[in-house]
Amino acid sequence: MSLLVTGSIGIDTVKTPFGVSKDCLGGSAIYFGMAASFFTHVRFLGAIGADCPFDLKKIFKNRHVDLTGLEVRKQSKTFRWAGSYQGAMNEATTDAVELNVLAEEPPKMPLAYKDSKFVFLANTTPNLQIQLLDQLNKPKFVAADTMNCWIKNHTADLKRLLKKIDCLILNEGEARMLADEHNLITAAAKIEKLGPTVVVIKKGESGSILIQSECNVARASSPCKHSQDGRATKLFVLPAYPATIVKDPTGAGDSFAGGFMGYLAGQNKTDFATLKMAAAYGTVVASFTISDFSLKGLTKITRRNIDSRLNELRKLVHF
Amino acid sequence: MSLLVTGSIGIDTVKTPFGVSKDCLGGSAIYFGMAASFFTHVRFLGAIGADCPFDLKKIFKNRHVDLTGLEVRKQSKTFRWAGSYQGAMNEATTDAVELNVLAEEPPKMPLAYKDSKFVFLANTTPNLQIQLLDQLNKPKFVAADTMNCWIKNHTADLKRLLKKIDCLILNEGEARMLADEHNLITAAAKIEKLGPTVVVIKKGESGSILIQSECNVARASSPCKHSQDGRATKLFVLPAYPATIVKDPTGAGDSFAGGFMGYLAGQNKTDFATLKMAAAYGTVVASFTISDFSLKGLTKITRRNIDSRLNELRKLVHF
Repeated sequence: MSLLVTGSIGIDTVKTPFGVSKDCLGGSAIYFGMAASFFTHVRFLGAIGADCPFDLKKIFKNRHVDLTGLEVRKQSKTFRWAGSYQGAMNEATTDAVELNVLAEEPPKMPLAYKDSKFVFLANTTPNLQIQLLDQLNKPKFVAADTMNCWIKNHTADLKRLLKKIDCLILNEGEARMLADEHNLITAAAKIEKLGPTVVVIKKGESGSILIQSECNVARASSPCKHSQDGRATKLFVLPAYPATIVKDPTGAGDSFAGGFMGYLAGQNKTDFATLKMAAAYGTVVASFTISDFSLKGLTKITRRNIDSRLNELRKLVHF
Repeated sequence: MSLLVTGSIGIDTVKTPFGVSKDCLGGSAIYFGMAASFFTHVRFLGAIGADCPFDLKKIFKNRHVDLTGLEVRKQSKTFRWAGSYQGAMNEATTDAVELNVLAEEPPKMPLAYKDSKFVFLANTTPNLQIQLLDQLNKPKFVAADTMNCWIKNHTADLKRLLKKIDCLILNEGEARMLADEHNLITAAAKIEKLGPTVVVIKKGESGSILIQSECNVARASSPCKHSQDGRATKLFVLPAYPATIVKDPTGAGDSFAGGFMGYLAGQNKTDFATLKMAAAYGTVVASFTISDFSLKGLTKITRRNIDSRLNELRKLVHF
């Protein structure tokens, strides 16, 4: 089943204790698309300016990524981000941002994308995420990412979005902020009540938590039998792959989402067992991303490397 | 196989967002002993002053805890600690400490304890840990805890201790400090080179990491075949039990160690499969400790509750 991603394409400059990567390819849709392409056919929606030095056709060649939705705007400049990481590299410090094309109209949804069944709305304003989603016919499973500034300053829009999606993928700080709750399990359950049946909380080097409830109260035409006294909820906890080579954490979250959604779309299933496998694949793909700068950790591997590391992860958590 | 614990007995006052527990029973040996007693016979070594309001005989009644090594010093006062937790309660702030009896001579090792095979040296000065250890005949598996001030200011003593023990159990901040290394897997491997064949890094709500190498170079009479180019190392990663009721994290680390060492001593084995089970039991016991103030989380459960939660944890990480 094909998977649509809408998100950013960036020219990144990243500093970590392991070096500097100047003007390299980045952006949420790029990391997501590359990660997801190991598992399924990806429909890519995004915009760049005339200044973009990267040939995305070449970069995604033979990777089952449909670039029909890539807009090159002659009068615009590409999104740029500069960031740095220190110490344990758990969090990026943003040194500079130029929104450029991201501050303009969103890219147009190609007609051929409108029947997309699996959809990932990478981090942007919730209002824009809703606009993009509303252009689709009847998606089967929609996931979105968000961040602290939308949680804080665009709360009403975000809550509208949450009623329209099936899955929210966010990091632990964002989850605590959105749910106004320190305990992450409780926070996930609280977020689920805002709409999505699946909540994935990413904890960086400490792994992830996934919960799935039986039905989506907000989207269901009539409340299901579990919707009264707390919905029946399934929980999965997974440590991160214990990577010893971590050069650049940029894109880890979007790669996780790409592996996660890519696997779901590839299987065309969203039952709990498939969601757990998807989270494990997301974890593994992200561990390759962080092993090198920009896309280098992902472009040098094959699906076979991913499957092999998945089996390793399964053994590492077994007791 | 019986298990010796040496550590503190304290009168604690703890404040958390869920309430205040004034002058309650605490201390590393207390939490450890209670946790370990679900799995094996515990030999308890510690000292209190005449002011101690707790009847330890009553508290440990029917719990297979030998109090021969409990010294009540008429002229002394009991160790006191006051601490508080805020927000996600990941770290305690120490509000007040009175070392009292802990600043005096250590308790005398009873003759009947000298043949102890499994030993836990709770956190105190490394020099004192060595003195206690040297009084034992021929222990089979010795584990110790330590903390930032000994790592920083008693480095030489700590390094002497590490050559004498089999297992170091410490938290992630301490591991990073001791190894001078941000990556925890690499840090664990570096610590292993200082002596212990087993290193357990506790990450609080984010679980734990366990590594075991094939041989103990420092203690072996002749280096084994793995000791040259990096020892063959086995790794286990485990998330914490996803507790939603967390009222007081005090004693979580010592309860983890108690469950871990208690299970090993109960099985009289230290192979990798047993170590992994032990870490899972430690995780589960700690999850009960933090569910209530002081010892209340542990005294209201049975081994059956622990086993049931262990099975739950196994299912939660399965994919």
